[in-house]
Amino acid sequence: MGLEIERKFLVAHAGWRAQAVGAVRLEQFYLFSREDASVRVRIRDGRAARLTIKTGRDGLSRGEFEYDIPLQDAVELRESRVGKLVEKTRHIVPLEGGWQAEVDVFTGTLDGLVMAEIELKTMDDAPPLPDFLGREVTGDPRYFNAQLAVEGRPPAEA
Amino acid sequence: MGLEIERKFLVAHAGWRAQAVGAVRLEQFYLFSREDASVRVRIRDGRAARLTIKTGRDGLSRGEFEYDIPLQDAVELRESRVGKLVEKTRHIVPLEGGWQAEVDVFTGTLDGLVMAEIELKTMDDAPPLPDFLGREVTGDPRYFNAQLAVEGRPPAEA
Repeated sequence: MGLEIERKFLVAHAGWRAQAVGAVRLEQFYLFSREDASVRVRIRDGRAARLTIKTGRDGLSRGEFEYDIPLQDAVELRESRVGKLVEKTRHIVPLEGGWQAEVDVFTGTLDGLVMAEIELKTMDDAPPLPDFLGREVTGDPRYFNAQLAVEGRPPAEA
Repeated sequence: MGLEIERKFLVAHAGWRAQAVGAVRLEQFYLFSREDASVRVRIRDGRAARLTIKTGRDGLSRGEFEYDIPLQDAVELRESRVGKLVEKTRHIVPLEGGWQAEVDVFTGTLDGLVMAEIELKTMDDAPPLPDFLGREVTGDPRYFNAQLAVEGRPPAEA
């Protein structure tokens, strides 16, 4: 099991765009999602697929089990419409000190939502927080991708 | 995706025991289970583990996606107690014509329940039905392992 530790933020302005060094197109859907666990399928750039199981309720860190799966399986699972689809482009934005932000620009039903994540190595890490980051939403279930898939964009930010 | 086509039966008497040629100890639990899909982790003889996604509502056939996963992952997922555990010993009983029955003797919370499955290759297959087979329960959700894990043994047969 890996441990996923990350901080999540809304994005205040588009200042990150000039610093982005790469992007990947992500399509993902949740076969299941509960408060204590979820099972996600993600397709990267239409070329590779991965199944991810997350466990645990903690907002900042969760258990994570990841398995590469055949792209064809992911496509068939997507077409079974078991989970609602989330589509986004993930931009990589390097930060000082070797850190990086992943800025997710959602499309499809979540069009207009932009969020940023910074992955930490330990709970005590204190990465730099650039000024394009808006309100922190770490641990807010309304901003879990699984929740966004089902409930849509929270009204307060829309 | 594979297609799982099987018929399930209660077991009427222990006549199968003399014909059994092998057995495997199965521990399995469901991370999630809904009518249209489930995600199962199964540990065989405490040595190997596999993740199985099933999709579709049809009682006789369901879509099936299977992935071998590290035993350690399965143990950690089991210990996260996300799904209730089903424990059983599966006995292999050869039938005429190259068919076989898998006779599951449940232990733990389902102690006393014995069921048999015959896996088909096509919907039209007509395997021999030996007299140790009792009432057919193909497609009866009360006898899905996922349901048994949560609801226990159906009262009518207990």
